[in-house]
Amino acid sequence: MTTVDRDTRSVGGFQFACGESVDDLRLAYEAYGDPSDPTVLVCHALTGSQNVAPLGESGEGQAGQARAWWGDVVGPGKAVDTAECHVVCVNVPGSCYGSSGPALTDPETGEPHGTDFPPVTVRDWTRAQRALLDDLGVGRLHAVVGGSVGGMNALDWAVAYPDDVRRVVPVAAAARLDPQCLALDAIARRAITTDPDWQDGDYYDGPRPTDGLSIARQIGHVMYLSKDSMERKFGRRAAGRDATRDSFPVDRAAAYFPYRDVESYLDYQAERFVDRFDPNSYLYLTRAMDDYDLAAGYGTDAEALAAFEGELLLVSFTGDWHFTVEQSEALAESARDADVPVAHHVVSSDHGHDAFLVEPGKVGPPVRDFLADGVAGRAVTDTADENRERTGRRRRPAAGRLERLGPRHRP
Amino acid sequence: MTTVDRDTRSVGGFQFACGESVDDLRLAYEAYGDPSDPTVLVCHALTGSQNVAPLGESGEGQAGQARAWWGDVVGPGKAVDTAECHVVCVNVPGSCYGSSGPALTDPETGEPHGTDFPPVTVRDWTRAQRALLDDLGVGRLHAVVGGSVGGMNALDWAVAYPDDVRRVVPVAAAARLDPQCLALDAIARRAITTDPDWQDGDYYDGPRPTDGLSIARQIGHVMYLSKDSMERKFGRRAAGRDATRDSFPVDRAAAYFPYRDVESYLDYQAERFVDRFDPNSYLYLTRAMDDYDLAAGYGTDAEALAAFEGELLLVSFTGDWHFTVEQSEALAESARDADVPVAHHVVSSDHGHDAFLVEPGKVGPPVRDFLADGVAGRAVTDTADENRERTGRRRRPAAGRLERLGPRHRP
Repeated sequence: MTTVDRDTRSVGGFQFACGESVDDLRLAYEAYGDPSDPTVLVCHALTGSQNVAPLGESGEGQAGQARAWWGDVVGPGKAVDTAECHVVCVNVPGSCYGSSGPALTDPETGEPHGTDFPPVTVRDWTRAQRALLDDLGVGRLHAVVGGSVGGMNALDWAVAYPDDVRRVVPVAAAARLDPQCLALDAIARRAITTDPDWQDGDYYDGPRPTDGLSIARQIGHVMYLSKDSMERKFGRRAAGRDATRDSFPVDRAAAYFPYRDVESYLDYQAERFVDRFDPNSYLYLTRAMDDYDLAAGYGTDAEALAAFEGELLLVSFTGDWHFTVEQSEALAESARDADVPVAHHVVSSDHGHDAFLVEPGKVGPPVRDFLADGVAGRAVTDTADENRERTGRRRRPAAGRLERLGPRHRP
Repeated sequence: MTTVDRDTRSVGGFQFACGESVDDLRLAYEAYGDPSDPTVLVCHALTGSQNVAPLGESGEGQAGQARAWWGDVVGPGKAVDTAECHVVCVNVPGSCYGSSGPALTDPETGEPHGTDFPPVTVRDWTRAQRALLDDLGVGRLHAVVGGSVGGMNALDWAVAYPDDVRRVVPVAAAARLDPQCLALDAIARRAITTDPDWQDGDYYDGPRPTDGLSIARQIGHVMYLSKDSMERKFGRRAAGRDATRDSFPVDRAAAYFPYRDVESYLDYQAERFVDRFDPNSYLYLTRAMDDYDLAAGYGTDAEALAAFEGELLLVSFTGDWHFTVEQSEALAESARDADVPVAHHVVSSDHGHDAFLVEPGKVGPPVRDFLADGVAGRAVTDTADENRERTGRRRRPAAGRLERLGPRHRP
């Protein structure tokens, strides 16, 4: 059985990128497996939690995508194998699953920090994770793996601690958000802050801005799906008879027009989500995601990656319009320019951005083999190879710089 | 100079598709040119108005996309030439530019109809337009042209009055909305109805639900643009120094992170929009758009089109994800199956859905030549021809069934 260490630790005082500080940054984490095995840090997505694998008991509120959110990819015998690696996942500062953030009670006042909590950035997450790993006695990491904004977090490790990690795997991520996604995130935040219950973020004693958070989440859900997946899942059909619109006021015309399956799904998801997530955290974490830019402080993505000593696997999905294949390919090109060993593995899937969660059979093999053998891993494909095959040019040998995790991992 | 007839007429009692009736349906319209010329009905988009051309004085509130909204396509010497055609545009029932709808004062009560006004459908719009044209003494139409949901309205003419119109031009439209757009419309409505100022639609004596309508409009704006057009227009850059977020509450972190150009644009657009559009109308018209389904009552799109005696030009845009090229191509295939002379003209543009408004140089020529010479029109291209060219098959002659508007229109 895999050992589970589920805890919250203080890493002491912490200064955020914005310049503000807290005296006592608390970080909730889960760690699976033997701490003497190579460590793999897994970075969670926007509304995810430290409960990445279905091991041990999940915490309060860790429902939906926050509960065992990558259980088919991380666990005993899985691609990120807790029987062979020490896997750590940390709830990022600003979130609401036990780490310091607006919803966590400030021990000094006995009340939630609210929006007194400093704004957070992806770099803050990376530095907080580094601090926690130091506390756990983990030095150099075998790998950092993350999905969506967690993939940005993984990528940030290659820049912030270029000597500290052998292999970095951003899955369904990008060097930065495009303006379409920036726009949708801004609209989502506006939905929250214009909900009268938001009260400038000081709502912890009264009703929560659940109407605004519902809209924010529904916008997010559309970003996570694709036209094809929505067509397949819902089409235009009406919801079942027992589906009712009872969670919010509707126009009188609703009685005449069908309540469609797609609406019912979104309403149901929103209802579940508002029970498990803090509206202020939604503001904080989307701010961090929007702000993230690999090239910030460097000029270009290639320059940002130049100091990275490890290897990079980018996994993208054909149906993903939140983080597109083209964005991952641009990032792969930058890594090639920087002479970072990189493979860009494109998964054919019409599941949209959600593919990184719901296509474990396609995500697992390249991640597993990359963790074992780097870019030379058997199930790892690379767009550059595919281009060379088309143009008849040979791939240069991948050996030399590669390190192996151990014979246990060989296919 | 082109004559302008700008008026509001009652077409008397009207029963809506939902079964409810009004005693006195009022329709605001504009008609340009000589009524003895062939008539072209132009159908406006979701938030458009009857003020399609920059002729005469525009009415109260007809700002933004409601004012002279197709001025580069419709007017003297333009593709839809008011010097040679009698051009009519009618504000659809449910809208707020003078036609009967929730915002119009009910003469019986002296108060706005509010949500007592019956839900409307695209077929209701078509029937109302037919009634008004009867009133104006217009029998058979030379053409119906419309963009976006106005294109659905145009398409509906081919089904509701298959003998009444020679040429139908749905621009940037489809046989039905896909579930992704249904979802975004439902979220937009939810933003309006959960705004506490909405008050079940009875807000005309108090503050209007402008926060909700702003979010609805911003969601719409993202649907009208494309990733490419947003990248080009905004990128990730910060807005100018004088741009301020002052129209709604923001999170404290807003002071730390940049106010981006894309946010500033959306906020500005929302501010302008809420001044010119009625929140209830937004609910009514998106309901009609969501409900529209060409095949409803027929089984298939081809069966719905089978009785149509005229010709069809579909114009779609490569960067449009609201109404995609694929949707127009599927519709073209149905028309081909129904032996309706059809051309599907694909415009290469990265302007997204907005292309139908902002690319008049690409929209005008095929529309002009189709109005003159039908599918054989010189600037009219067809995907089927392009496929035949690729496969080496010849195009069948388009003559025989074609009618011509007159020698003046020949290129």
